[in-house]
Amino acid sequence: MLINGERKKTIDVTDRGFQYGDGLFETIEVCNGQAVFLDRHLDRLQAGCDRLHIPFPNREVLCFEAATLIQQSSFQQSASEYLNQAVLKIIVTRGSGGRGYSPPDLIQPTRVLSLHPFPDYPSAYQEQGIIARFCDTRLGLNRTLAGIKHLNRLEQIMARSEWCDPAIEEGIMLDSNDHVIEGTRTNLFYVKNNSLYTASLAKSGIEGIMRSIIISLASEHEWRVIEHTFSKDDLMSADEIFVSNSIIGIWPVRQIAGNYFPVGIKTRQIQAWLAQFKHRTLSASGHSSVPLIAGVPIGD
Amino acid sequence: MLINGERKKTIDVTDRGFQYGDGLFETIEVCNGQAVFLDRHLDRLQAGCDRLHIPFPNREVLCFEAATLIQQSSFQQSASEYLNQAVLKIIVTRGSGGRGYSPPDLIQPTRVLSLHPFPDYPSAYQEQGIIARFCDTRLGLNRTLAGIKHLNRLEQIMARSEWCDPAIEEGIMLDSNDHVIEGTRTNLFYVKNNSLYTASLAKSGIEGIMRSIIISLASEHEWRVIEHTFSKDDLMSADEIFVSNSIIGIWPVRQIAGNYFPVGIKTRQIQAWLAQFKHRTLSASGHSSVPLIAGVPIGD
Repeated sequence: MLINGERKKTIDVTDRGFQYGDGLFETIEVCNGQAVFLDRHLDRLQAGCDRLHIPFPNREVLCFEAATLIQQSSFQQSASEYLNQAVLKIIVTRGSGGRGYSPPDLIQPTRVLSLHPFPDYPSAYQEQGIIARFCDTRLGLNRTLAGIKHLNRLEQIMARSEWCDPAIEEGIMLDSNDHVIEGTRTNLFYVKNNSLYTASLAKSGIEGIMRSIIISLASEHEWRVIEHTFSKDDLMSADEIFVSNSIIGIWPVRQIAGNYFPVGIKTRQIQAWLAQFKHRTLSASGHSSVPLIAGVPIGD
Repeated sequence: MLINGERKKTIDVTDRGFQYGDGLFETIEVCNGQAVFLDRHLDRLQAGCDRLHIPFPNREVLCFEAATLIQQSSFQQSASEYLNQAVLKIIVTRGSGGRGYSPPDLIQPTRVLSLHPFPDYPSAYQEQGIIARFCDTRLGLNRTLAGIKHLNRLEQIMARSEWCDPAIEEGIMLDSNDHVIEGTRTNLFYVKNNSLYTASLAKSGIEGIMRSIIISLASEHEWRVIEHTFSKDDLMSADEIFVSNSIIGIWPVRQIAGNYFPVGIKTRQIQAWLAQFKHRTLSASGHSSVPLIAGVPIGD
């Protein structure tokens, strides 16, 4: 773990990330020593910082620290599980100081980079799909905070606490107007009459990196992609449903609230395109997505 | 500062308070060595813990640690400003652990108690009133999180960042349906035709300790008190307006968005009742609200 470049595990209790959830985070797959789609994650982090008026930390420093963490873990025998697949988490907060909610004149952001074991998901989730449920906890509407991956995550925590059945892998969340938005930790898509639908995230939800890649891939292949507002009933009339995020990729949803859905050819097609796209992206950026020479990152 | 009873200033970066804003806080006035309305603050903290399914820390331990902090600061010459008035902040989080948003099986909450200088507000704020503005940032609607003082405070931070004019002391926030709810750090009341109005907080906002005391005092004196849903226009047609919290008490609002309001007799009456009530409460609980004998708290 690296906190502002230092190897430590604690932060100051005055950090506004702790006091108010005043910050942002990214959760990134690490595959064969490469942080997958790192540029896209840093772009989103930067967009989130812009929205919250937090100065974005130096991008090359973030890349360098990510590469350092990944490289060092690959030298640790005890952490050999990190070699193939791991999760890199980056947190950026507004740092300490200020008077109540008012930030200090000079903001010194805190950055925390940490590496975690890759979750041990059954391969069946990707192949046969998962069971999901609808959550009672609602997502509030807030244009200022919609889309970005900020640290105020109590809505998701309360939604996730609604069930403990291990057979249910995701909870689908509605907003306060009863529109379907996303999963507790995934974006949600459905296929109907050969078109691909996902929720408009102008007022709530997180614009996932995987979501944007899926939309791009589908559009490139001339699918009709529609970001709109839809209800539970609209979703229940879908031909296929799937969820996505940067760690799981794409999981078909085979059951929600007692309704069964097939793992259809559109979902399989998108999964295949995503696998190809990820392979091409990783190959293009070489063995390490952040090549190091004597500890100095080359470009980005 | 005391973190789980230890004198330190850092918390583990894995704490869910830092990772997700997964916790609650209280901001309490300390007056002549007493934590004012401590019981009420601990009641609200406990209600918040219940709502978020966080085990409430032992109440006597919290009282003991609060008394320890206050007592020790009063022995420090350098902290003599704390003697008369200070601010005690209590944070309780869900602690570390769990898998993503899912909490660990065994939750070990983190408690942080810290003492801060009392803000140096001009006495004119209480006497002649303050200038407020309307914020563009909206409060999302969420019945699960409404009312409690949780650590997800980005809405307030973004609202507070909307202005830097030091003449404006508070920003009034509307919810996503354009109903007036509260100030960025205060509850809001208005008087119209001899009735006292404040926003219903069933879907957003924080149920302030001072708000509940004001409602009780007004009701005891047989005022008509109405918690309801109201618009900017309703507020602009008020006879008197004031804001409240545990640190400021009651501040009349003399101007909002170019509209002027008198500091009326109803506001003065409530201010007087509040001063009497606070005096009675502090007198009843003796010199220290948490008397210590050999470091052991007596009852509560």
